[in-house]
Amino acid sequence: MRKFFEPESVVMVGAPRKTGMGAFNNVECMVRYGYKGRIYPINPNATEICGFKAYPSVSEVPETADLAVISVGRDRVIQMFEQCVRAGIRRVIIISQGFGDADQRGLELQEQLVKLARENGVRVLGPNTMGILNNFQHFTTGFIDLPIPEKVSSVSVIAQTGVIQVASPNFTYQNWGKAIDIGNGCDVDFIDALEFFADDPETRVIVMHMEGMKRGREFLEIASGITLRKPVIAFKTGRSTAGAEAAVSHTGSLVGEDDVFDAAFNRAGIIRVKSASELKDAIRALLLLREMEGPRLGVLTPTGAGGIMSADACEDFGLELAKLPPGLSEELKKGVPAWIHVANPIDIWPVGMIGGNIREVYTKAMVGLLKSPEVDGVLVVIPVPSSPLHANFGIEEAMIEARREAGNRKPIAVWVYMDDIASATKRHESIEGVACFDSIEQAVQGLSFCYRYHQIRRRNVPSQKSFSVDRQCLKPLLKKGREEKVLLGEDALKLLAVFGIPVVRGVIARGWEELEAAAANLDYPLVLKLAGSAFLHKSEWGGVMTGIESLDELRSAFHEMTESVRLRDPGIEIEAFQLQEQAEGKELLLGLKRDPQFGQVIACGLGGIYTEVFRDVSREIVPVDRSQAEKMLKSLKMYPLLAGVRGEEGVKMEALLDALERLSFLATEIPDIAELDINPLMVAGDGCRAVDARILW
Amino acid sequence: MRKFFEPESVVMVGAPRKTGMGAFNNVECMVRYGYKGRIYPINPNATEICGFKAYPSVSEVPETADLAVISVGRDRVIQMFEQCVRAGIRRVIIISQGFGDADQRGLELQEQLVKLARENGVRVLGPNTMGILNNFQHFTTGFIDLPIPEKVSSVSVIAQTGVIQVASPNFTYQNWGKAIDIGNGCDVDFIDALEFFADDPETRVIVMHMEGMKRGREFLEIASGITLRKPVIAFKTGRSTAGAEAAVSHTGSLVGEDDVFDAAFNRAGIIRVKSASELKDAIRALLLLREMEGPRLGVLTPTGAGGIMSADACEDFGLELAKLPPGLSEELKKGVPAWIHVANPIDIWPVGMIGGNIREVYTKAMVGLLKSPEVDGVLVVIPVPSSPLHANFGIEEAMIEARREAGNRKPIAVWVYMDDIASATKRHESIEGVACFDSIEQAVQGLSFCYRYHQIRRRNVPSQKSFSVDRQCLKPLLKKGREEKVLLGEDALKLLAVFGIPVVRGVIARGWEELEAAAANLDYPLVLKLAGSAFLHKSEWGGVMTGIESLDELRSAFHEMTESVRLRDPGIEIEAFQLQEQAEGKELLLGLKRDPQFGQVIACGLGGIYTEVFRDVSREIVPVDRSQAEKMLKSLKMYPLLAGVRGEEGVKMEALLDALERLSFLATEIPDIAELDINPLMVAGDGCRAVDARILW
Repeated sequence: MRKFFEPESVVMVGAPRKTGMGAFNNVECMVRYGYKGRIYPINPNATEICGFKAYPSVSEVPETADLAVISVGRDRVIQMFEQCVRAGIRRVIIISQGFGDADQRGLELQEQLVKLARENGVRVLGPNTMGILNNFQHFTTGFIDLPIPEKVSSVSVIAQTGVIQVASPNFTYQNWGKAIDIGNGCDVDFIDALEFFADDPETRVIVMHMEGMKRGREFLEIASGITLRKPVIAFKTGRSTAGAEAAVSHTGSLVGEDDVFDAAFNRAGIIRVKSASELKDAIRALLLLREMEGPRLGVLTPTGAGGIMSADACEDFGLELAKLPPGLSEELKKGVPAWIHVANPIDIWPVGMIGGNIREVYTKAMVGLLKSPEVDGVLVVIPVPSSPLHANFGIEEAMIEARREAGNRKPIAVWVYMDDIASATKRHESIEGVACFDSIEQAVQGLSFCYRYHQIRRRNVPSQKSFSVDRQCLKPLLKKGREEKVLLGEDALKLLAVFGIPVVRGVIARGWEELEAAAANLDYPLVLKLAGSAFLHKSEWGGVMTGIESLDELRSAFHEMTESVRLRDPGIEIEAFQLQEQAEGKELLLGLKRDPQFGQVIACGLGGIYTEVFRDVSREIVPVDRSQAEKMLKSLKMYPLLAGVRGEEGVKMEALLDALERLSFLATEIPDIAELDINPLMVAGDGCRAVDARILW
Repeated sequence: MRKFFEPESVVMVGAPRKTGMGAFNNVECMVRYGYKGRIYPINPNATEICGFKAYPSVSEVPETADLAVISVGRDRVIQMFEQCVRAGIRRVIIISQGFGDADQRGLELQEQLVKLARENGVRVLGPNTMGILNNFQHFTTGFIDLPIPEKVSSVSVIAQTGVIQVASPNFTYQNWGKAIDIGNGCDVDFIDALEFFADDPETRVIVMHMEGMKRGREFLEIASGITLRKPVIAFKTGRSTAGAEAAVSHTGSLVGEDDVFDAAFNRAGIIRVKSASELKDAIRALLLLREMEGPRLGVLTPTGAGGIMSADACEDFGLELAKLPPGLSEELKKGVPAWIHVANPIDIWPVGMIGGNIREVYTKAMVGLLKSPEVDGVLVVIPVPSSPLHANFGIEEAMIEARREAGNRKPIAVWVYMDDIASATKRHESIEGVACFDSIEQAVQGLSFCYRYHQIRRRNVPSQKSFSVDRQCLKPLLKKGREEKVLLGEDALKLLAVFGIPVVRGVIARGWEELEAAAANLDYPLVLKLAGSAFLHKSEWGGVMTGIESLDELRSAFHEMTESVRLRDPGIEIEAFQLQEQAEGKELLLGLKRDPQFGQVIACGLGGIYTEVFRDVSREIVPVDRSQAEKMLKSLKMYPLLAGVRGEEGVKMEALLDALERLSFLATEIPDIAELDINPLMVAGDGCRAVDARILW
């Protein structure tokens, strides 16, 4: 990959003769951007382009270049690509559009390209890409003439579009260090780029702009390791249905379900942002501040209103206001009237104004907060008036002094306001571990990214626990399921039971005599249901009767149900009934879904009639171990009901956690299951039991 | 109020002799800011301040000034205020802190001030305020030396802090036109300022920064009228509990419950924002774009990735992608390969690049979108490269042309990106009805504010419907409730019934014989409950038994319940039982809460065990009429379950709406109710019935 970013020589296939305004000549752009390597334009109708000798074909070029960049009409791309292959070139960027991003013909062309590339050991970036931008080497392959950036940051981006790299100031801090547009990603993809940036010493923060994903499972594993070393931020777009449609027409890549991406990013330790503005703030925070080791924030503000805004933002972004370290309040209040309160947020203005030395109280307060073991990060609100009447605030010097005296690197987020914002930002950010944001809310959110990254670095990587399984019992069920593509009712419950997931006791009975016999072995109350594929929506047939307390009641229920079916359709035969013990408790839903990219996803949440409306579901990529399972349950809104509220007994959490771990094991053992629903799983104080289930292949 | 903003003469009480750096001398600031009126500094220790003759006391000033500004230590404020009163001054700003914002003594001083002011017909702004900023007159009363703004917008702000006015560029578009800091709001408050700005021809958009509110009900009524004429934006802080605590220590004003503020803003047609960044965008949108008459957005973008981001943002902010007008796609595709798709979002790049004229396709597409009756607003993504190689995009001219040709004022939100952002913003915003935002997400949100404002201008103001009430029956209930401060069970249900809210039939019975007699008049199944104040938490006493199907079952239930109470506490006497018909259906909660500021708030949402965890509740300020009630129900997440999903029967919506209207009537008739809970209200296909209720005074 390195030579994609730092080629010593480049063949430019399809370089236009025209230069200047409106030419979109990528040779011209490359030269103007300051590339120092050797350039070989290929154009049979030109002898010279931008001062470089032009060649009629790649074969005429006097050396085997490190890289070829092709931008010709889509129908000539293969031919040009073959020329590159024959010339021994190992890296090709295809700028041209009209491939997997367009129509069937484009897709076929793209597949041919990939085949050719694989056969010849050539790596291809694109098609439909701006290619590479490397600001450390003044190298660009795009056709947009960019100004040479004055400042470059150690932030690299992998994007599925060119706009992210041409619009550096709109998306990042200063400018990207390196950028790669994977376009249709026919060969070089997110994983290749991610692995390169992971080991690139010029990259400290990795950003991904992503519309879709291929090789999701591999991506997960590789990214999981990288995020322990470097922060990775994802700006995943195409979240909405409408967006997903647009994605198909844009890059031809599949857009997965958004919830799955959330779960995948979460598993991999990738920080997800939802807008360009959030992206910029996350980059700034993770580049300049790095980690915040807890959620406790100390706030210094010359305006009480700013303190209130900070408190609101803490709640919005999952931080909390720290307790002031002992003695700090008293120290700051020395010499000021008793009616002036000092708490966190610390309102510095009355103390500093009346005490008479704003810089001094800022320093004292900052040292106190930075040194306190109760404080994990600091927000400082700083007025930067341009007037000569106010030049003595000197908070920047206070900050340098406090940083030195406190002797640690706790993050300091700053909101500078008033007139002198740009230069004040520059000055403050030259202090180690200080970053300036455009508002209080953004500053607090910035710190929340640093706290999140700390949690990511400390996270446990889950491993799958094994459970014993009766393979003899499993075999026929699996065979039936795979043949019929579905297992329902007692069959599905049996499969769950094989994996040790508790299910309600029940039987299939073919008529009254079998029901009567079965009832003798079950505990009342019972539930009687219609069974068989004729009655998929049982309740429409009057096919579920609950609360059966005795054999008499069972008999009435049997007759009523039989009669109900006869009334609705006299021609239909009831094959069988399902008779189950009735389970009490709260209704949960447990499930699996196989995602085409990321594999089995396990879901757990509220069951019953409110499932769809409240969508109180947590999702994790398999495997899920005990601590992951705990996190899943705790992230549910309904968790307090599971834990028990107002003296009400909670459910048996152990049993629920065990069921989740076993379901995860089931998913790893039968990875070809497409979907699995346990709905409801009844959970109560004495355990949990699956009442109904459905498994699809 | 006008003379607060445009005084011809000002007395400056407590003007310091010291000037220059660190002096915070508000006379100096006033002079530097360019105030042209007459200034009278009051300082017994000076003869001259900033070139103005200083006076030892207000009484020596040779004229009755339009305005006095007091900034002395809190203990001397009253004395100075009295001087102003004696001199006949009618408007006083008190900059000093330490009043309602501080301690009990401060509060008393503040009350004295108010009393003095009222007695003498003097209006007071403050204490604890920066006072007034009027950029149309270069007038400021603050002690911070501000640069004189080059550009001023017709946006005025009412704030509860000074920071909002000194930090104009951080909170608004260009600079505030006028600003007022109401500080502790002891006299001049939000209502006074709002009424002034409503009629002020130099104010087109009104912004409020608010931490708390007094005179809420009046505010609601006045603001409701104003929002029909001018957009009003509220940045209400102190949302979190922590924030509410900080608010008390900051301005001494009460911070109401945040949900009530949401309901109040909603009722008044005020647009609420939650951060400084949102505030800036809302101001920009409402100042430059005004209204968007529907949610349908047309998007023009030179990058497919931008189209996807737009679609995501539409979903986030309640807009939708419009259908392209007939023929537009075909027209744009003329002369480009068939594989290039043209849909909304319109990806202009391939069309323009290959078609060869980017400006022309931008114009065509923009005209098509602006003219289409299917499109309510347009988002245009515009690259603004600084390179001379790309100066020919000419999209700004395209926009001017399209605006002229389309002949309407549909809002156009623009995201300009790349190098030339500041000047491109200026150029584009000089076109009528065009506003530029920092990102696609912000542009879409900006448009969503314009759509919201359109809805606000068209909203119906609800009126209270009257219902007939049996006053004879109501009287004793009211008497009991007001005396005992609470009505429970059958009493509370009776009061509801008086207002025509359906309740389940039930009786209070004092023993088995009364129960047996009562059961003869009720329909099974029945529910038996313990009654009386000894059993507030009935279920802890085994005091609720449901599903009683016959007199036999009732007898068993009676014995079981009696026994259960005896076992738990043999000394307790069961006064009475409540026997009710059992209601089926979905559990809702209906309720009232009297807010100290805004009066009765009506709430409606999910009842039962999930009430607290999902908080699926909508809230409206009373009165609520039919259309408000509909909106309340539709805004619930559980609404689909009420309306009926998957062939399942919905509930009788008419009955529910009627109950809400009647509850609203009840609230207006008995405004002294502190809280009222109907929980649950059982709603089903045949109507709704209150099962239990509790009313507190």
